[in-house]
Amino acid sequence: MNKVTIVGSGNWGSVAAKLIASNTIKLSNFHDEVRMWVFEETLPNGDKLTDVIKQTNENVKYLPGVKLGQNVVADPDLENAVKDANMLVFVTPHQFMEGICKRLDGKIRTDAEGISLVKGMEVKKEGASMISTLISNQLKINCSVLMGANIANEIAMQKFSEATIGYRENKEAAERWVQLFNTPYFNVTSVQDVEGVEMCGTLKNIVAIAAGFIDGLEMGNNTKSAIMRIGLKEMMAFSKLLFPSVKYSTFFESCGVADLITTCMGGRNRKVAAAYARNGGKRSFDELEAELLKGQKLQGVLTAKEVYEVLTARGWVERFPLFTTVYEISSGLLPPSAIVEFNNKSKL
Amino acid sequence: MNKVTIVGSGNWGSVAAKLIASNTIKLSNFHDEVRMWVFEETLPNGDKLTDVIKQTNENVKYLPGVKLGQNVVADPDLENAVKDANMLVFVTPHQFMEGICKRLDGKIRTDAEGISLVKGMEVKKEGASMISTLISNQLKINCSVLMGANIANEIAMQKFSEATIGYRENKEAAERWVQLFNTPYFNVTSVQDVEGVEMCGTLKNIVAIAAGFIDGLEMGNNTKSAIMRIGLKEMMAFSKLLFPSVKYSTFFESCGVADLITTCMGGRNRKVAAAYARNGGKRSFDELEAELLKGQKLQGVLTAKEVYEVLTARGWVERFPLFTTVYEISSGLLPPSAIVEFNNKSKL
Repeated sequence: MNKVTIVGSGNWGSVAAKLIASNTIKLSNFHDEVRMWVFEETLPNGDKLTDVIKQTNENVKYLPGVKLGQNVVADPDLENAVKDANMLVFVTPHQFMEGICKRLDGKIRTDAEGISLVKGMEVKKEGASMISTLISNQLKINCSVLMGANIANEIAMQKFSEATIGYRENKEAAERWVQLFNTPYFNVTSVQDVEGVEMCGTLKNIVAIAAGFIDGLEMGNNTKSAIMRIGLKEMMAFSKLLFPSVKYSTFFESCGVADLITTCMGGRNRKVAAAYARNGGKRSFDELEAELLKGQKLQGVLTAKEVYEVLTARGWVERFPLFTTVYEISSGLLPPSAIVEFNNKSKL
Repeated sequence: MNKVTIVGSGNWGSVAAKLIASNTIKLSNFHDEVRMWVFEETLPNGDKLTDVIKQTNENVKYLPGVKLGQNVVADPDLENAVKDANMLVFVTPHQFMEGICKRLDGKIRTDAEGISLVKGMEVKKEGASMISTLISNQLKINCSVLMGANIANEIAMQKFSEATIGYRENKEAAERWVQLFNTPYFNVTSVQDVEGVEMCGTLKNIVAIAAGFIDGLEMGNNTKSAIMRIGLKEMMAFSKLLFPSVKYSTFFESCGVADLITTCMGGRNRKVAAAYARNGGKRSFDELEAELLKGQKLQGVLTAKEVYEVLTARGWVERFPLFTTVYEISSGLLPPSAIVEFNNKSKL
């Protein structure tokens, strides 16, 4: 009997809890109960978030109006939440993952399997610090990832979408994860390519910045789709250079082309980049982020900088004209209109 | 010295003339003059279209406001237009191609090379009747194709975009075509996969119908990108079944993913399908086409029907749930909302 705990309870974590809970009550090889670790907060009226979730079966702060399922149990005690679980779903902002892993070291079942829904690894000169690798190394467990075109609120409303699970070697575990997440409106498939899937979830944000520049400059659909295509090819090439095991077919999965489309059509990176281009680069990304995202953070600018450092350190700049140009524009070295001039630098 | 004639002078043909003429005057291995066959029409004021193009250097009917280049020579006589050319660019509505080929048989240089910019082949039970094959067989010449995310008016305004040339065997000819079309704002690459490139240009219209249904039903970005991704995979699989030589990498080129994105974001197929879904299927495609497209024709519905006939004849229906569902909805067998229910038929 498998027992599931969700580490995290934000917007996407709450939707994941709802998806999973709808399956565990139906599947005979899973305990019904899904434990969800809640980072305790005091709401404006003085109530504790955990208590309100218990009373209302809703995460009133991060997913208001959606019932999670009676078998979701909110737990503010991280160690207590994980101790019985053999399936751990990680879904927190990425900057918290290192601290969480330290707290969990030695506190989880030795036979546990992990899956990360966390987007936004750091890319360092030495290579990409994948969240799944952090979890594997710190907790000594196998860790898969789940990524895709997943706007949490749309999934909460049961609108049809898809996701991709990337696994390392344990195919049986991957199939159990598919069983746990898949519903008639949330179509999950698995591929043996954890690096490819996780790289998609990070690199797409650089392309979304480029797409935002095109939108801000009102350059039209032709140009935008060309930029998205070139971005997809650079995502593939960069992932393959860092991890030779990466499969090109992964980029045709939901985590690849579909998530890229969603992120370049809506999404916060696109939005702020469009505003940056409309202002001709005269207002900073920090200022526009604060104004437009109201506390949410955009990752594409930071990722573009990190990737650019890898490109220069390894002599790959000329092979990635779009990634390079996004960095050069977002750091103020070039004007936004340069986004369509990179093709003179090199031929893709 | 290469000599170029463009067979066709509509919107896309006129833009092609402008692109090509800007290159032939610069390239030493091409005659400056670009001849453009014009299907003669009498304008409302009584003038002949050819005469007006000669006087104004503009195709006032199909590309008003854009100078074609002084080295573009409009010619209403088809046989005269082609007789000296060794490079023939075909760009007419697809239903005229058979008649044009018959008229040209024996009238062209035996060393001529062709390239087709014509989208919309017929898919018959015996297989796909590609336009490039029609040209090759009827005129006994080698024929490449050029496809991509190419909204003609955006290219005429010199907005950055891309295209893909698919060639059969003659790499030297493909390189000459790239030389002829490529400009700083129109980035052309070639792949040895004429079938893959040409299939993209036709099959994308089925996916655009599906994307239109999603828009009409207001199902959101997640669902739309999922449907586009599934459509792309069915395009790949169907092309590969008909032509085993097709390369999956072709679908990462402009003719593939980029043209698909453009067509699913704007485009007439998407537009009419969205209206069809908004009306719950109660107003016919023919009626909506007449009202919304004002004489232009939409191809996706017909292509979906043709492809469905191939699927049934060959026993492939279950492998193509999206293509099948688009046919079933557009022929009135299912309601538009069924577009997201196909995943219960089979797992992609």
